Amino acid sequence: MAGKPVVGILMGSDSDLPVMEEAAKALMGFSIPYEITISSAHRTPKKTSDYAKSAERRGIKIIIAGAGSAAHLAGFIAAETTLPVVGVPIDSSPLNGLDALLATVQMPGGVPVASMAIGKAGAMNAGIFAAEILALSDDGIRQALKDYRKAMARQVESKAKKIKKLV
Amino acid sequence: MAGKPVVGILMGSDSDLPVMEEAAKALMGFSIPYEITISSAHRTPKKTSDYAKSAERRGIKIIIAGAGSAAHLAGFIAAETTLPVVGVPIDSSPLNGLDALLATVQMPGGVPVASMAIGKAGAMNAGIFAAEILALSDDGIRQALKDYRKAMARQVESKAKKIKKLV
Amino acid sequence: MAGKPVVGILMGSDSDLPVMEEAAKALMGFSIPYEITISSAHRTPKKTSDYAKSAERRGIKIIIAGAGSAAHLAGFIAAETTLPVVGVPIDSSPLNGLDALLATVQMPGGVPVASMAIGKAGAMNAGIFAAEILALSDDGIRQALKDYRKAMARQVESKAKKIKKLV
Amino acid sequence: MAGKPVVGILMGSDSDLPVMEEAAKALMGFSIPYEITISSAHRTPKKTSDYAKSAERRGIKIIIAGAGSAAHLAGFIAAETTLPVVGVPIDSSPLNGLDALLATVQMPGGVPVASMAIGKAGAMNAGIFAAEILALSDDGIRQALKDYRKAMARQVESKAKKIKKLV
Amino acid sequence: MAGKPVVGILMGSDSDLPVMEEAAKALMGFSIPYEITISSAHRTPKKTSDYAKSAERRGIKIIIAGAGSAAHLAGFIAAETTLPVVGVPIDSSPLNGLDALLATVQMPGGVPVASMAIGKAGAMNAGIFAAEILALSDDGIRQALKDYRKAMARQVESKAKKIKKLV
Amino acid sequence: MAGKPVVGILMGSDSDLPVMEEAAKALMGFSIPYEITISSAHRTPKKTSDYAKSAERRGIKIIIAGAGSAAHLAGFIAAETTLPVVGVPIDSSPLNGLDALLATVQMPGGVPVASMAIGKAGAMNAGIFAAEILALSDDGIRQALKDYRKAMARQVESKAKKIKKLV
Amino acid sequence: MAGKPVVGILMGSDSDLPVMEEAAKALMGFSIPYEITISSAHRTPKKTSDYAKSAERRGIKIIIAGAGSAAHLAGFIAAETTLPVVGVPIDSSPLNGLDALLATVQMPGGVPVASMAIGKAGAMNAGIFAAEILALSDDGIRQALKDYRKAMARQVESKAKKIKKLV
Amino acid sequence: MAGKPVVGILMGSDSDLPVMEEAAKALMGFSIPYEITISSAHRTPKKTSDYAKSAERRGIKIIIAGAGSAAHLAGFIAAETTLPVVGVPIDSSPLNGLDALLATVQMPGGVPVASMAIGKAGAMNAGIFAAEILALSDDGIRQALKDYRKAMARQVESKAKKIKKLV
Repeated sequence: MAGKPVVGILMGSDSDLPVMEEAAKALMGFSIPYEITISSAHRTPKKTSDYAKSAERRGIKIIIAGAGSAAHLAGFIAAETTLPVVGVPIDSSPLNGLDALLATVQMPGGVPVASMAIGKAGAMNAGIFAAEILALSDDGIRQALKDYRKAMARQVESKAKKIKKLV
Repeated sequence: MAGKPVVGILMGSDSDLPVMEEAAKALMGFSIPYEITISSAHRTPKKTSDYAKSAERRGIKIIIAGAGSAAHLAGFIAAETTLPVVGVPIDSSPLNGLDALLATVQMPGGVPVASMAIGKAGAMNAGIFAAEILALSDDGIRQALKDYRKAMARQVESKAKKIKKLV
Repeated sequence: MAGKPVVGILMGSDSDLPVMEEAAKALMGFSIPYEITISSAHRTPKKTSDYAKSAERRGIKIIIAGAGSAAHLAGFIAAETTLPVVGVPIDSSPLNGLDALLATVQMPGGVPVASMAIGKAGAMNAGIFAAEILALSDDGIRQALKDYRKAMARQVESKAKKIKKLV
Repeated sequence: MAGKPVVGILMGSDSDLPVMEEAAKALMGFSIPYEITISSAHRTPKKTSDYAKSAERRGIKIIIAGAGSAAHLAGFIAAETTLPVVGVPIDSSPLNGLDALLATVQMPGGVPVASMAIGKAGAMNAGIFAAEILALSDDGIRQALKDYRKAMARQVESKAKKIKKLV
Repeated sequence: MAGKPVVGILMGSDSDLPVMEEAAKALMGFSIPYEITISSAHRTPKKTSDYAKSAERRGIKIIIAGAGSAAHLAGFIAAETTLPVVGVPIDSSPLNGLDALLATVQMPGGVPVASMAIGKAGAMNAGIFAAEILALSDDGIRQALKDYRKAMARQVESKAKKIKKLV
Repeated sequence: MAGKPVVGILMGSDSDLPVMEEAAKALMGFSIPYEITISSAHRTPKKTSDYAKSAERRGIKIIIAGAGSAAHLAGFIAAETTLPVVGVPIDSSPLNGLDALLATVQMPGGVPVASMAIGKAGAMNAGIFAAEILALSDDGIRQALKDYRKAMARQVESKAKKIKKLV
Repeated sequence: MAGKPVVGILMGSDSDLPVMEEAAKALMGFSIPYEITISSAHRTPKKTSDYAKSAERRGIKIIIAGAGSAAHLAGFIAAETTLPVVGVPIDSSPLNGLDALLATVQMPGGVPVASMAIGKAGAMNAGIFAAEILALSDDGIRQALKDYRKAMARQVESKAKKIKKLV
Repeated sequence: MAGKPVVGILMGSDSDLPVMEEAAKALMGFSIPYEITISSAHRTPKKTSDYAKSAERRGIKIIIAGAGSAAHLAGFIAAETTLPVVGVPIDSSPLNGLDALLATVQMPGGVPVASMAIGKAGAMNAGIFAAEILALSDDGIRQALKDYRKAMARQVESKAKKIKKLV
C-alpha cells in the first residue's frame, strides 16, 4: 500500500500470518497504508517494546496485534503506548483459542486492549475497526466504509436469491 | 460534562449502571463530553436503531455499549453505524459473564465490535480506549493519557513502598 | 412445498445452509409450507428487521433462525415480532458453537427465544418443534408427529435387532 | 387463574419454585390458565410419564419444565408427548447452571425441547413464549403480547430519563 | 459369551456402537456374559423403561448405558431400577462430550449414576468396573482382575524398555 | 454403625467432611456398616496406598473417595485395588468443582473410578450407589432401596400437593 | 527474613497481597530470605522489566509472580530473564481465575513459566516449589522440606483420628 | 546424552512420546543428561512410586512428568519426593487437554507441581525450565540459555524480514 503506514500489524509468530493477513487485506480494501511484522512479547520483548514506544512518533495511529495461547502481545504493547491497540486472539493451541481470547480481552483497568473475535473473522474486523477509527478524521474512509456495508448487504441479498432457487 | 457529547454510553438495563458508570468516570477524567442512556437491543430495538443511525450526524464519534447475558447491544449498534463501537460484557447472569463476553466479542467478519473485559474493569477501559481514539486528533487528550499512565505508575510505586514496610 | 408458507427459516450466512436445510427437510416431512432465506442481523439489519416485522401479516406463524459465533439473529428477530422464534446455534467458529449457544439461549427476561441444540440436530428439531406448535390447531400434523415418533421407535428397534446379531 | 389449564408447569423439586413461579407470573399476566406441580424425571418417573402422556387429552397445549443439575425433566416429557415442551435450566448445582443448560438444550434429533435461558429470566420467558404460541389462535393474547412489548419499551424509556438526570 | 447375561449394555443410537463395544470387549475379557442393545431415552422411552424395570428379574445385575449430547439414558434407567447403573458419556456433539458428561454425572441426590470418562476409555472402564462389582461374589473374576492389572503393568514395563532404546 | 465395616469412606482433607458425611448418612440409612477417615493422595500417599491395598482383606467391599481441586484420591486408590472405587468431586477451589470433576472422572482405560456428581448430592449418591452394589447379594438392602425410592416418590407427591395449594 | 533475598515475589496489584503472602509465609517457614513488591506488567512495564533484568545480578534465584485477569506478569518477567519464573494465577475477575490460569500457563514454546494452582493454594505451593529448587544446592532446605512433609502427614493423621471419634 | 542423568522424564503411556520427546530435545540442546521412561500412576503405581522415591539418591535433580486425561502422574510423583516436579498436560482425550491441565495444575497446598502449557509447547518448555533450574549452579547452562534466547530472537527477526517482503 502506497503512503506512510498509519496502522501497524504485529503478530507473535510467522505461523499467525494466514490469520493476520486478513487484517492487511481489510486495510488494503480501504486504501489504508500499513506495515506488518513479527514481534513476540516473549521471544523479542525489547523489539516489541521499542516498536510500541516508537509507533506514535513514527506516525502509526493504531496497532493491531495478533497472538495465540497465553496471548500477551496486545497487552504488552498497550502497556507501552497510549495509541489504540486492537487484539486478535488466534486459535493455535489445543484449547481452540479460548486461552488466547481470555489473555487478550481480560485486561485490568487502566490499560485497554480492544479485542476482536478469535481467528480470521477477528483479524478482518481488526482491519475494518482501524478504518472506522481513521474515518473519524477522513471522510474518504468513512464513505468507503459505508460503501463496503452496502456491498456486503448486496452480497447477502444476492446469496439469498440463489438459496430461494436452490431449495 | 460541559460541551457537546462525542461519546455515547448505552446500556441494556438500568441494573447495568453500577458497571457502566465506570466508563463515564473515565471519560470525565479526560474531560471528554459524553451522553449516557438506557436502550435495549431486545426491548427497545427501534430506539436503539435510531440512536445508532443518528449518532454520527449528532456528533457522536464513539459508542460504548454494555450488556449482560446474550449481550447483543454492541453488535446491534455496530450493524447500524460505521462509528467505532466498544462493547462491555456485564456479568449479570449465572454464567459469570462468559455468555456476555462471547456474545459481544465473537462478531462475524464485516461488522466489528471492540470488546473490553467483563465488568467494571472493562467499562473503565472502554472510557480510556475512547480517549485513546479521540487523542489521535486531540493533543490535549493524548497528554492527559500520558499523565494518567504516569500517575498510575506512581500509584503502583507508592503501594509497592507500603508493602515493603508491611511484610 | 406447495401452499403459502407458515414457517420462515432464516440464516445469517449461506455457509449455514448445510445445517439449516435440516429444518427445511423436517418441515417437508410434515408437509408444512415454508420459506427460506439468508438475512444477517449484522450485515442486513434492515432486511432482517423488515422480515420480522412483516412476518405476521404475511401469514408466517413461526420463525426459525440459525446463526453462528455471536449468534444474534434469533434474538434480533424476537425483538421485532411476538411470533414464536426458534433459534439454532451453529458451530462455525473455533469455539465449537458454545459462543452461538450462549448468544442464542441466554436472552434477557421479556423477549424469549426458544433455543435448540447446536448444529444439525438442533436445526432438525427446530422443524419438528414448529410442527408441534402448528399441530395445536391441525390434527393432521398432530397425527403425522405421532406417526413420526412411531417410525423413529421402529427404526431404533430395527437397529437394535441388527446389533444383537453383530456382536 | 380461572379456566381449564392450557399450560402445565412442572419442576423437578420444590426448591425450584422461586425460579419457576416466574413462568406462572408471566402466564397470569396474559390471563392464561395454567397448572403447576412438582414431578421428577428421576424420583417419580411414572408420575412424570403419566403427566406427559395425559397432558394432551387433559387439554394442556404447552408444557414448561424446569430442572437443575443433569436436567432431564424437559427431555423426559418431550419423549412422551408431541406437545411443545419448553425447558428452563436452573442453576442449583456448583456449576452455575451450565450442566442444566447443556442437559436441557442438547437434545438429539427427533425429540425437540425448546430451551430458555438459565434461571429466572428463562422461566419468565418460558411463560411469555407459551403465550406467543397460544396467540397463534387467540387474538386477545396476541394483542396482550404487543401491549406488553410496548409497556416494556415505555419502562426502558422511563428509566432512561431518570439516568440522564442522575449522572 | 456363553451363559445367561448378568450385564446389560445399552446405547442410545447405533452410532454409539464403536464406543460401547469397548465395554463388551472388557466384559468378554473377564468371561462375563452380557447382552447389548440399542434403546433411547427419548425415541423409545417405553422400551427403555421396560428394559430397566425387567432387568433385575431377568437376572441382570449391572446396567451400562452410553449416550451422547443431553445424555439422559443412564439417568432414565437409574430412575426405574435399584440395580447399579454405570453411565458412559459419548462425544457425538460439537461440544466434545462435555454436554454428555455433565448430563450423565450431575445426577440429583437420590438416584445415582456412576459415570465413567468420555468415550472409549470410559466404555472400557465401564466393563472393568462391572467386573469389579461382580468380583465381590466371584473369586474367579477377582483373580482375573488381578491378573489383568499385572498384565497391564507388564505391558507398560515392556513399552518402557522399548522407549529406552528408541531415544 | 454396628458390625464390621464393608464400605470405606475417605476424604483428602478434614474440610471435606461436611460434604462426605452425606455418604455416611446414606449408608446409615441402609444400616450398612462403614468406616470413615482422612487420607490424602498427596500428603499421606503411603497411608492412602496401605489403606487401598489392605481394604479387601480387611473386609471392605467398596471404597468411596472424595477430594477437591486436582482430585487424585479416587484414582490413586483405584490404582491399588480391584475393589469398586466411587469418586466424589468436591467444589473446594475457585473453579466450582470442574477441576475436581475432570480429575476424578476422566480416568484412563484400565483403572476405573465411578464418579458421582460434584458436592453433597454426589456424596449422598455415592452412599446409595454402594448400597445398590451390596444389594446384589443382600435382599434386605435391595428391599430397603426400593422402600427408599417409594418414600422419595411419596415425598415429591406430598410437596406437589402443597405447591398446588400455594400458588 | 534475615539475609540477602534469593527469591523475589511480585504481584500486579496490592489487592493480590492476601493471596501472595502465602508464598512469603511458605518461604519464611523454610528460612529463605525473600523480597516482595508490587509491579505491574501493564501499569509499570519499565519497572517490571528492570526488576526482571536486574534480578540475576542482584542475587535473586527464583521469581514468583502472581496476577489476575489477563495475567501477563509471570510471562512478562520470563521474557526478560533466564531465572526460573513461577506463576500464581489469582481469581480476581468474574471468571473465577480461569482467565488468569490460562494466561499464566499457556506460554508458547521457548519461554517457560511454571504455573501453580489458582489462588492461595497456588501461592503457598510457589513458595514451597522455590524451596525445592533451592534445596538442590542446600541440604538444610532439603531436610526442612522432608520435615515439612512429615509434619503435614502427621497433621492429616491427627485430623483422621478426630474424625473417627466424631462420626 | 553422555553423563549421569540429572533430569528424569516420565510419561503415562507410550502414546505420549511424540509430545514428551520435545522435553528430551530441549534438554539435549543444553547438553543436559536425562533419562526417559514410561510409568503410569494408575497402571504401575509401585514402579512410579519407586521411581519417585529413588530419584534423589540416583542423582536426579528434576522430574518432568507428562500425562493426559485425569493426569495424576506429576502429582503422584510430587507426593513421593521433594525434588522439583514439572508437569506437562497432554491433550489425549476429547476435552482437548483441559482435563489434563486442571488435573495437573490444581494441586492442593503443600505438594507443588509446576505446570507447563498443554502439549508440545509445554513439553519443550519443561525441558527449558529444567535447564533454568540447573543453571542456578551451572554457568555453562546459564550461558547456553542466554545464547538460546538470542538465537530465538534472531530467528524472529529473520522471519520478520521475510514477512515484510512477502506482503
